[in-house]
Amino acid sequence: METQKNRIFEIMNTEFSRYLSAQTDLDDDAIRRIESLASARSLRRKENVFQAGEICRHKVFVVRGLLRTFGTSDDGSEHILQFTPELNWTLDAESYDRQVPSRVSIGAIEASEVLLWNKTDFDILLKSTPALKILAEQIIARNMHYSRQRILMTLSATPEEKYAEFVRMFPTYLSRLPLRMIAAYLGISIKTLTRIRHAQLQR
Amino acid sequence: METQKNRIFEIMNTEFSRYLSAQTDLDDDAIRRIESLASARSLRRKENVFQAGEICRHKVFVVRGLLRTFGTSDDGSEHILQFTPELNWTLDAESYDRQVPSRVSIGAIEASEVLLWNKTDFDILLKSTPALKILAEQIIARNMHYSRQRILMTLSATPEEKYAEFVRMFPTYLSRLPLRMIAAYLGISIKTLTRIRHAQLQR
Repeated sequence: METQKNRIFEIMNTEFSRYLSAQTDLDDDAIRRIESLASARSLRRKENVFQAGEICRHKVFVVRGLLRTFGTSDDGSEHILQFTPELNWTLDAESYDRQVPSRVSIGAIEASEVLLWNKTDFDILLKSTPALKILAEQIIARNMHYSRQRILMTLSATPEEKYAEFVRMFPTYLSRLPLRMIAAYLGISIKTLTRIRHAQLQR
Repeated sequence: METQKNRIFEIMNTEFSRYLSAQTDLDDDAIRRIESLASARSLRRKENVFQAGEICRHKVFVVRGLLRTFGTSDDGSEHILQFTPELNWTLDAESYDRQVPSRVSIGAIEASEVLLWNKTDFDILLKSTPALKILAEQIIARNMHYSRQRILMTLSATPEEKYAEFVRMFPTYLSRLPLRMIAAYLGISIKTLTRIRHAQLQR
């Protein structure tokens, strides 16, 4: 068991270091230093990294699989803020930055492998590794642009336009998402979503 | 005229340096250096800082007045991303960061006084002034948290809840906003908004 765990961790680190090499100009030593502070975790399908009400204690890098960030209404319905496929980062920034309980949960849609850094360790890395800091800022900027674009779409677009934009943005993992999750992301009913997809297939 | 302009600029700088002293531990020299790279601009009511299709070339600090960031649909309807009252910053980050045409416009709701920094100058200030960089990161984080919260509200809240949240968040300038702009921010019709406000007044 321990050996298998080590083997998985090794594979994860290989994929992570490939990612970091492609995204930054960090040398092998710096990458190994970043990896050395990560812990690896395997998530079963539907397993949560943390739940609403808990503190988001880690930055999460998805090596394999697909996560979602979601809130749950009093009536039990789910609202999806973000999907995070492999080779992407996720966290609830508000909870993580201030170490206060989160309003959302982050959980696995598929069985997933993730790397985790706690805030203390990651803050040290950001201070000592300017290239990592630059990457982090780029990711924050990209998320920021996308959030604003999404708010504008929400205010102005028809359900058809929202779905078309979604397909345009996320072609690679669209087929891995249950319909109800796409609906919960777009803020439209499953019935409306089914109608839109049906109309598109007929064209 | 020139004297009056100088006088306005002086008042603006006083308010800006008071703001910076309160928000950071910058000393007077550093604050004067930041001010010295700003240009001042007076905006008439309804005047835009820039329009959709133009590049957002400046970081904007509102000294007096109230701005809005908005998109316009093909049918001419407005959708409001953000309100920016006095002693707050605004820009379209996507356009500013990459110096590409913006999808939104930023304009004055009331006659306003703003300070502007172009990207080249502000980048120099961020590099040379760590406390300004920290403040900028705090503002980005706050905007990020709020954008995510707003997306979650959009997906899950009733129009009544959206309006209640809006009143809670922005009590200070609620009375300065025309009804149609509040509706364009919340993504609800003026009719629905009027009904909600009427119901609240009767309680």
